[in-house]
Amino acid sequence: MAKTWATLGIDLHLEPTGPGLRRGLTDALREAVRTGRLAPGTRLPSSRTLAADLGIARNTVADAYADLVAEGWLTARQGSGTRVAERAAVTGPPERPVPHPPPERARLAHDLTPGTPDLASFPRTAWLKAARRALAAAPNDALGYGDPQGRVELRTALAGYLSRVRGVRADPERIVVCSGFAHGLKLLGEVLRDRGAGSVAVESYGLFVHWNILRRAGLRTVPLPFDGLGTRTEDLTGVPAVLLNPAHQFPLGGALRPQRRAAVVDWARRTGGLVLEDDYDGEFRYDRQPVGALQDLDPDHVVYLGTASKSLAPGLRLGWMVLPASLLPEVLAAQRAGGWATGVLEQLTLAEFLTSGAYDRHVRAARLRYRRRRDALVTALASRAPAVRVRGIAAGLHAVLELPPGTEASVVRAAAWQGLSVQGLSAFRHPSAATPPLDALVVGYGTPPDHGWSGALEALCRVLP
Amino acid sequence: MAKTWATLGIDLHLEPTGPGLRRGLTDALREAVRTGRLAPGTRLPSSRTLAADLGIARNTVADAYADLVAEGWLTARQGSGTRVAERAAVTGPPERPVPHPPPERARLAHDLTPGTPDLASFPRTAWLKAARRALAAAPNDALGYGDPQGRVELRTALAGYLSRVRGVRADPERIVVCSGFAHGLKLLGEVLRDRGAGSVAVESYGLFVHWNILRRAGLRTVPLPFDGLGTRTEDLTGVPAVLLNPAHQFPLGGALRPQRRAAVVDWARRTGGLVLEDDYDGEFRYDRQPVGALQDLDPDHVVYLGTASKSLAPGLRLGWMVLPASLLPEVLAAQRAGGWATGVLEQLTLAEFLTSGAYDRHVRAARLRYRRRRDALVTALASRAPAVRVRGIAAGLHAVLELPPGTEASVVRAAAWQGLSVQGLSAFRHPSAATPPLDALVVGYGTPPDHGWSGALEALCRVLP
Repeated sequence: MAKTWATLGIDLHLEPTGPGLRRGLTDALREAVRTGRLAPGTRLPSSRTLAADLGIARNTVADAYADLVAEGWLTARQGSGTRVAERAAVTGPPERPVPHPPPERARLAHDLTPGTPDLASFPRTAWLKAARRALAAAPNDALGYGDPQGRVELRTALAGYLSRVRGVRADPERIVVCSGFAHGLKLLGEVLRDRGAGSVAVESYGLFVHWNILRRAGLRTVPLPFDGLGTRTEDLTGVPAVLLNPAHQFPLGGALRPQRRAAVVDWARRTGGLVLEDDYDGEFRYDRQPVGALQDLDPDHVVYLGTASKSLAPGLRLGWMVLPASLLPEVLAAQRAGGWATGVLEQLTLAEFLTSGAYDRHVRAARLRYRRRRDALVTALASRAPAVRVRGIAAGLHAVLELPPGTEASVVRAAAWQGLSVQGLSAFRHPSAATPPLDALVVGYGTPPDHGWSGALEALCRVLP
Repeated sequence: MAKTWATLGIDLHLEPTGPGLRRGLTDALREAVRTGRLAPGTRLPSSRTLAADLGIARNTVADAYADLVAEGWLTARQGSGTRVAERAAVTGPPERPVPHPPPERARLAHDLTPGTPDLASFPRTAWLKAARRALAAAPNDALGYGDPQGRVELRTALAGYLSRVRGVRADPERIVVCSGFAHGLKLLGEVLRDRGAGSVAVESYGLFVHWNILRRAGLRTVPLPFDGLGTRTEDLTGVPAVLLNPAHQFPLGGALRPQRRAAVVDWARRTGGLVLEDDYDGEFRYDRQPVGALQDLDPDHVVYLGTASKSLAPGLRLGWMVLPASLLPEVLAAQRAGGWATGVLEQLTLAEFLTSGAYDRHVRAARLRYRRRRDALVTALASRAPAVRVRGIAAGLHAVLELPPGTEASVVRAAAWQGLSVQGLSAFRHPSAATPPLDALVVGYGTPPDHGWSGALEALCRVLP
């Protein structure tokens, strides 16, 4: 039986038992904040009081509060309780927890939310220099509607770079420029739907924002099982496409095993299936050469997707796809029907940035920065939180810290109380995932500026068991 | 009965009679070029030969060739016949004739295709200066994923500008930044579909690319009738939304009459319908103050859409919507699910460009430039082509030249042979429009650079009857 709750002057429709309770409470509170029914600054009742009012476990309320603090809808401060965040209404974060900066970031003392590079190290001067050169060299007609595939200067520069650095078989004629990974996924989702697809296999842990994009394109997402070796790709029966992070799974942190790389490509060849390779942070590997792109194994069945969001900045809204030839006309048709969104000046600037060598220089400096942070994290954990294991390969901008079973929610909550924004692994778990949940933190060590890193690490160590 | 044609080694499925024949031939040839079955450089048979092979009228073949030359798929030169354009395959123009630059533009001596401003007059130095200032002032977190609604700096600058210049009731909280009009229309189409809409009323003449965007979002487009006073808005029974150019109809060139403005707003209020106001060139009126935005009559039922594509350059991919409050959450959800596409640096640069006054200065200079061109066009026509009447108000970047009945196709063909790219009005006619077709040219006098304008005008006068 459902019940309605009006303690705060808002109606909440809740299922009083079962695993959906926490989600139901979280969703209802989020909606109340989003729509302004709970005004910014409003102080919420304590979790004990609210739990008693609702007749549910106190932990459930505390967990819902912690989730919404982590998402930025609520704020929690020792001494002043839990309140509705000041700017949460209307311009709040996406519908599901995603590792994008919540609006309350500025109020948090430390931010280890994954998904964003160190924005303070964006190479502003070099970027402006490239913009000046690019605009000086651009012919007038570059400023027109142009090619929905993207400027040929950028496609040519990307083909060289991706081939050299990631082993991608990249012909400029098969590259389509897009506005970041999410935009590329949106286009591919529309093409798959138009081809009659009803579902796409995804990994058990990933980003709600990506699953939402596919869902809004009319596609169900079916989570693949995983085991100690990572995502299992042996059985893809019944789906026409699969979305994977072969080089560095987000968030779990592993690389796809060779036999599983082979299995997914075999499946694609055998069935005409499509592999969507999300290579979001392929430049950042610290212990060895990164594993090359899966696309190289079969460019006719693998779409390679890359982005400047981790290597430079998400605000640029620049990404790229290397497509099988058979897919190109449909993707371009979808691009036209979406208003081919990527600004020409940014495209030309990135082309200049790549060909001048500025991109390589920036990535090398960033790699060193993030590697040092990761090393410092591992060292600090070994001495100060020996119960915590760092999971996954030495790569990327985030680490997964495995926690003792049953402690994730309380650690996230404790972090929020300390002004540290960090996300639990459960925020990235597909709702239909069959494998038992893991308790872990997803720590975005790339997020803080250099001067904020050691303080953030210290705050993290304080809340770990 | 249908028949198949293989003269050129390609299979063409054609209806041998009726009004669909020209369309069928054009589509089949375009598809053959697009897919590479007709290789770049291939010389096509003469229209006489092909017409005899097919057993159809020679004019039908000639018209199809002319359409494809205008679209850039084919090239026509006196002495070397009609050939497949060199770069037509794969990266060719959209599926339907739209006034975007075809890839063959560079080969044409003169370009009067409508839809693009004078790109040579893009204020490169002022834009770079604004970019430098904007990037210097931007906080680090501006470079992150940010707000799918758009940067608040730009929304604030737009609210002031649109209110001052176009009479829009614009609150920054109701503005959503998008990547040009087409991208905004795509978002709105998705929202309407999700609300259960099946169709949108459009004007009888407009852009195929816009109708395609709505169609791909799952919406039928229903053309409104028009008469000597312009588009009729009295009967909108059965549609949930209507797309209009109230200030300057594209391409017909009129302004929506006061009683018809009132009628459409009354309809929207009465039925809860939605008016999508495409104000693509509202800054450019030469004979009087432009008519204010329709949105001011009822901001709760009218979506105002604007763009930098005509005032600055389409390559920027910058546009904006002013939304009814009730629509905002759904549009933002669609924006998130599409990868919120608009680059932050371009947004901040435009904000700086607006607030510094550079935008006003540029628009004033452009208005003078285009007004002089329009005056020169009208004067030249009066003396050299007295049979041709200029239709519509003194506004925008294009003029519609009414031709003697039955002459449009031959004039477009003659222009293509002379190396002049110009489009016939029929390229903009909705396939289901009930009103009889008009013979006319749509002349984009804004398109050429200053040094190319008088030559283009001269070439135009030569081909007019």
